[in-house]
This record gives sequence, C-alpha cells and structure tokens, in this order.
Amino acid sequence: MHEKVITAEGTPNIALIKYWGKRDSGLILPMNSSISLTLGKESKMIAGKTFELRTKTSVVFSKYLKEDAIYVNGKRLDLKDTDTIERFRAIDMMRERAGIRERALVVSENSFPTASGLASSASGMAALVYAVAYALDLGLTRSDMSRYARIGSGSACRSVMGGIVMWNKGTREDGVDSVAEQLYPETYWPELRDVVSITSPKAKKVPSRAGMARTVATSSLYKQRVKDVDGRIDAFLDSLRRKDFHEFARIIMEDSNSMHATMLDTYPPIMYMNDISREVIYAVHELNKKNGENVCGYTFDAGPNPQIITLREQVEEVAETLKNIRGIKSIFYTGVGGGPRLLDMKDSLIEEGSLLPKG
Amino acid sequence: MHEKVITAEGTPNIALIKYWGKRDSGLILPMNSSISLTLGKESKMIAGKTFELRTKTSVVFSKYLKEDAIYVNGKRLDLKDTDTIERFRAIDMMRERAGIRERALVVSENSFPTASGLASSASGMAALVYAVAYALDLGLTRSDMSRYARIGSGSACRSVMGGIVMWNKGTREDGVDSVAEQLYPETYWPELRDVVSITSPKAKKVPSRAGMARTVATSSLYKQRVKDVDGRIDAFLDSLRRKDFHEFARIIMEDSNSMHATMLDTYPPIMYMNDISREVIYAVHELNKKNGENVCGYTFDAGPNPQIITLREQVEEVAETLKNIRGIKSIFYTGVGGGPRLLDMKDSLIEEGSLLPKG
Repeated sequence: MHEKVITAEGTPNIALIKYWGKRDSGLILPMNSSISLTLGKESKMIAGKTFELRTKTSVVFSKYLKEDAIYVNGKRLDLKDTDTIERFRAIDMMRERAGIRERALVVSENSFPTASGLASSASGMAALVYAVAYALDLGLTRSDMSRYARIGSGSACRSVMGGIVMWNKGTREDGVDSVAEQLYPETYWPELRDVVSITSPKAKKVPSRAGMARTVATSSLYKQRVKDVDGRIDAFLDSLRRKDFHEFARIIMEDSNSMHATMLDTYPPIMYMNDISREVIYAVHELNKKNGENVCGYTFDAGPNPQIITLREQVEEVAETLKNIRGIKSIFYTGVGGGPRLLDMKDSLIEEGSLLPKG
Repeated sequence: MHEKVITAEGTPNIALIKYWGKRDSGLILPMNSSISLTLGKESKMIAGKTFELRTKTSVVFSKYLKEDAIYVNGKRLDLKDTDTIERFRAIDMMRERAGIRERALVVSENSFPTASGLASSASGMAALVYAVAYALDLGLTRSDMSRYARIGSGSACRSVMGGIVMWNKGTREDGVDSVAEQLYPETYWPELRDVVSITSPKAKKVPSRAGMARTVATSSLYKQRVKDVDGRIDAFLDSLRRKDFHEFARIIMEDSNSMHATMLDTYPPIMYMNDISREVIYAVHELNKKNGENVCGYTFDAGPNPQIITLREQVEEVAETLKNIRGIKSIFYTGVGGGPRLLDMKDSLIEEGSLLPKG
C-alpha cells in the first residue's frame, strides 16, 4: 500500500417506498424492496438554518497505523462497541477482498444533525464504502459497493448510486442478490424537489435497528404491509415511467403512512411522528385538495421531520404552507443527486503525511 | 297512550377490543366483534375538573305533540338533518313495534363534553332506547334494546348492559344476530378502574362514522386487523376468565394501537392521538416496566383522551404518573357500571304536564 488518502462525499437518500424490517439481521436482508431518491448535495434555504445534506469521508490504509481509528464529527469512536463493530464490518470485508492487513484511519464529517431521521448513516456509509473502494483500488461496480454499504446500514446501499434507486430485496439466503439498482439517473426527472422541514433536531427515542426488529417480531399488521409492498412498487414504477406526479405522490404518502402504522402496531409501540408532523400531513392534503390534484406528497423516515416531494414550480407554494406551521425550525430544499463522488486532496479531512485528523 | 314521562340514565362504555368499521352501513353491522366495560356513573376527581360520565334522557309520547322534538344539552335538534335522522331511526322503529303514531318529546343531557372521544353517543343512545322501551311498554330484553341502540350508534349497543359486554358481530345479513351480550356482570371484577385524562375538550376533526368508512375503503392493513381480532378476542376472554391483569392489559394496549394504526393507514390518514397521548403511552409502558408486569393499560377511542384501565390498588400510582404529564387538563376515574336504569319523576327533564323541556 502506498498510503493513498482518498476523500469522498456521499448524500442521504429519501425512501419513497420504505425499508422497515429485516428477513436476516446478520446480512441485513430486507423483508421488502424499497425505492429512494438520492438527494442532491446542495440545499437552498427557505427559512431558518440550512443544512447541506452530505457526508465527507477521508480514508487511508497504512502499515504505520497500529489500529483502526474512526472519527465521526470530531469524535473518535469506540471500536469495542458492538454496534460500532457491526456498522463498520464493511471495512474488514473490503480489506479482506483486497488481501491486505493494513489498519485504516477514517475521518468523517456530517453537515447535518445525526440520528434525527435525516439518514446520516446512509450518506456516511455511502461515502465510506466509496472512499475505501478507491483507497484499496478494488475496482468495484456500484452494485458491489451497494452490497458493502448494506452490511453497514441497510438503507445506505441505495446511496451509492445517484438518481432514483431501487434496493431489490433479493431471494438468496446469502444476500448476494440483495443489491441496489439505479432505475433512473438524476437527469430523468430533474424537476423533482425534496422540501425538508426540521421540527426537532433531538435524537430519536428508538434507534431504527432495534425498532424494526421489534416491529417484525410483534406487529401483526406488518405481515400485511410486506405483502402489499410488491403491488405498491409495481404501481409506483408505473407512475415513474409516465411521470404521473399525482399518482407518484399518492403512493409515497400511502407507503409512509403504512410504515408508521406498523410502527404504532409494534409492542410497545414506536411513534416517530409528532403533532407538527401531523399538522404537515393535514396541510399537504389540504393543499392538494385546493389544487384539485396532488402537487406534493409527504414522507417520513424514522423521525418527525417531514420531507415533502414536489416539483420545481410548486416549491414556493409548499414553502408558504410550511411557513404557517408553528414549531418548524428550518425549511430547505434539494433536488435529486448523482450519488457519491471523489473529492480533491485539498478537501481531505486527514492531515497530509500525518495519519491524523485535520485540525 | 297515557303520556307517561320516563327518565332513564345511561353511561358510556370503553371498548377494550375496538369497533372500527362496518360490513353494512345501513344496518350498522360491524366487521369484527368488540368488547367493552360499561362505565360507572360516579367519577372520582384526581386533578382538574371531574366529569360525571352519564346521560340523562326523558321521553314522552303524546297525541298532543304535533311533531317529534329532540333536545340535547338544551339545544333542539334539526330533524331534517340527515345525520340526525339516521341517529334517531330507532325511535321510529320502536314506535312502529308498539303500533302507535304519537309523536315524541325527547330531552337529553350529557354531563360531559360531546364529540371528545368520550363516547357521548353511546351513553345517550343507551339512555334513549331504555327510556323509549319503557315509555312504550315494549317489554324488551336487553338484547332487543342493544339491537335498537346499534341502529343509532354502533358502539352504543354495548351500553345497554352493565359489566363486561361483548358486541357479537353476527353473521346474518339482516343483522338480527349482531347484538350485545353481557359476558360478566359489574360485580365480577370489581377492582377494575378506568382512569380518564382529558387532554383536549375540543371536538375531533373526523367524525367516527365518516372515518371508519374511509378506513374500510382505503386501508390495506385494516384487512389484517379484522382477521386478527378473532384470535385476540379468544386470548382476551381467557385473560378475563383467569383475571390475569398482565395479559388483559397487554391485549387492550395492542388492540388500541392496532386500531389507531389502521386509522393512520387510511387515505387521507386519520390521526386522533396527539403528543400528550403519546407521552401517556410511553409513561404507561415505563410504569409497567418498573413494576415488572403490566399494572395498567391504555386505550384510546376516536380521540386524544387516554383511558387507563387499572386495578383499585394501582389508581394512585397511575394518577401520580399522569400528574407529571403537561397538557392534561383533568384526571378522574370510575369503575364498572351496571348499565342504564330508570330515574324518579323528580329527575325528569320534562316539565310535568307541559310537554316542554324543563327550565
């Protein structure tokens, strides 16, 4: 190894057909396929503070490193922590594939609050896998990368590609066919916008991983959801093909509500949405009713922050509606992004020649 | 007719296995059987204002009345209103059964806020059917009465009996077998208590009748709920038989969450619970965890007000927990009641000999 420092940038994705629940928790194989938009790395402010939705990650493998070291947002992680070991298994697997033993230094920075339901783990894992793949010269396809990203954090596998991405659940027990696939590049429907509202930057009560395991174990309605998703995906793909926004928006709202319904049906129940989320839901349906068709649709990940998918010409109307809702701390929007990319050496988070985080 | 003024009193019931959705909206036949406690008419205050949970209704049929007149809480109802006609069809049906044509004066008063999710329609309809049955000397069984009450408001059919009551969904198309049945009298488990919190006395956004029709029409998860309820009822009857409060509480919490999950899965979604409801849910699970077993269980009707079922010796602990939750306006509790009963002439809401409401 020649101590190549690689820096990559990844962005979150917003699931429109949601992933919630695993059929194999070791390999992170999902109960159903899911579809998402990979978000653009640039955000435009509407009100309050704007967050750029991206993670930058620098990686170097070196024989001079005695042990792996991972820094996230300036804090060194405890690599004896079981959760952390799980999340970073992909590094070991890729190192094994490269046939090397050198230890890694990973320095990563999120530009937005973690554990707020804004999919920081997805952008982080995508940037990490992308950077490691290049640092180790593995010559991976995006499909290969999605497999490694999946091991770290299920939904992250969709963030290794840009545009509109489907994570095929796969049927094989070894999970080899449970990979992401780009349905459409980011240029296919360039008018799509994601208007993000931050209602609460606080960390959520139940982490997704534990929450979805509880749903699979205890929710009876969940079985029906899993059965439904196949049909919903067919209808959704059809709306995408025809660029039928009205149908597209209806399906994403239904799917988001269906997922949160199974969370509520979990024992004890999991409730990520709050009164502000509910107000946004009512406001969106009202706005759509006023327009005589769906001009926007909400979707909620495992958190209270609404993400409203709309088209460029409707962003202003959506923004005006959101501004009238009390308790929303900031509003910004982004488009569809191209997925992870490499950054220049000047953007590195690792001090040149030092094997230490910058600053 | 000899212008007999009859006054009766009814109380709400709290469904522990919920009714939400009809298989026949004309006859009000439910998709699933449901089980409830008929509440006691006396409430004990814990904090804030106490509401007595009862409806008093006076009825007289007279040839001197030119038309039916119904007063609820001092306000005369518009009997040209379709909803009102629907709700009071039972009077016509009972009049027909008696073979008379005299018009009716009905005066009814609720002791608690209507349309707040506190089942005012159930106590009102139970009191009405009970009073009319006696005013017309129909010699009805409670089962007969439950059939008439059902026509006015589905869940009301469970309030014509005391104790623990099951509304059998029935299988016949004419609905004759869709009646209430007393499972246990109010003396069977006298330690049961219902601790009611009022979080918002405001009327709810979506009336139950319209809401449940939308759920049946649009929620896919609802199909699974309907399938589940049979099994849940078996387990619930077993917990009742054994007076196993831990199981009993688990099942009522699961069933309440399952119903609200199908509401959320409705398109557009229906959301009756608010942030205070959610805090109560978390607090109940925490209290149960602290006790090492379920000492209480929440249930929510079509509104945000939590009703916590517990045992006499736990009321204080539950009350202390609720007092710590901001936004709860009043807390009181009641026991299991004996169902409707006749009141003395002195309690009449109709001015003697006048065919007019008192006062």
